Amino acid sequence: MRELAEIEGVVVQPLKQIVDSRGSVLHMLRNDSGLFSQFGEVYFSEIHPKTVKAWKRHKKQTQNFAVPLGKIRLVIYDNRSMSSTNEKIVEYELGRPEHYQLIQVPPMLWYGFQALGNQTSMIANCADHPYDPEEAESLPAHSDRIPYQWE
Amino acid sequence: MRELAEIEGVVVQPLKQIVDSRGSVLHMLRNDSGLFSQFGEVYFSEIHPKTVKAWKRHKKQTQNFAVPLGKIRLVIYDNRSMSSTNEKIVEYELGRPEHYQLIQVPPMLWYGFQALGNQTSMIANCADHPYDPEEAESLPAHSDRIPYQWE
Repeated sequence: MRELAEIEGVVVQPLKQIVDSRGSVLHMLRNDSGLFSQFGEVYFSEIHPKTVKAWKRHKKQTQNFAVPLGKIRLVIYDNRSMSSTNEKIVEYELGRPEHYQLIQVPPMLWYGFQALGNQTSMIANCADHPYDPEEAESLPAHSDRIPYQWE
Repeated sequence: MRELAEIEGVVVQPLKQIVDSRGSVLHMLRNDSGLFSQFGEVYFSEIHPKTVKAWKRHKKQTQNFAVPLGKIRLVIYDNRSMSSTNEKIVEYELGRPEHYQLIQVPPMLWYGFQALGNQTSMIANCADHPYDPEEAESLPAHSDRIPYQWE
């Protein structure tokens, strides 16, 4: 149950939603998953309607994102000179129920989020290293170094 | 920043909420935390208003719960004969902003959740073993084996 995404190294995996009248159980990541390597940190990032959180890049941290609440657009920009998808930009829509997925983003890719819909969304990240400002880079959402216009 | 809870082995730790006008960042667990031993699985459990999810007990899995959305009551019942808090029942309220906490529940304690308020809540669990039905036990919410009445 793994589909190769359009950027080298990015993997998208559908996640199980176990429906229950009291509230669903939503899978994210297990240590016996082929996508798991090691545990660094798990945290959440809310994103309010009509807002953008972008751009971020990590030198060593691999991100494992899922969106258990709301709907977001994840945009990934590949400017890794050795990548077969160098200069490619791909938009992914994440959220339940259709797009409840784990998306694994390897290091050295620029990424950002945009809220979709009128509800606050929540992104969960189970990364392979804990957050370290030394290895994280940022650019403003409207940086001219990234050829993408947020709507 | 760790406060000992009233049941032997249960630990409650306040978690950081980094406020941001676009949406807060909510810490949960890092691999350099004193509460981290190993990664088994991370998943979410929704709980709709006026519902209860109870009772569960695990023979080997340690739970690490946080509630990034909504508000819940977590009830823990200790019937471990060797425990200094044997036969004790404790209610914890979890949710933001006042009670955004990690609560670590060791094996062999019965626990259950009740939604508080009018909003669907979400419980995140970062457990030290992946879910295994062989080591999980259940009782109905209104079992006479547990001296607790859900409101």
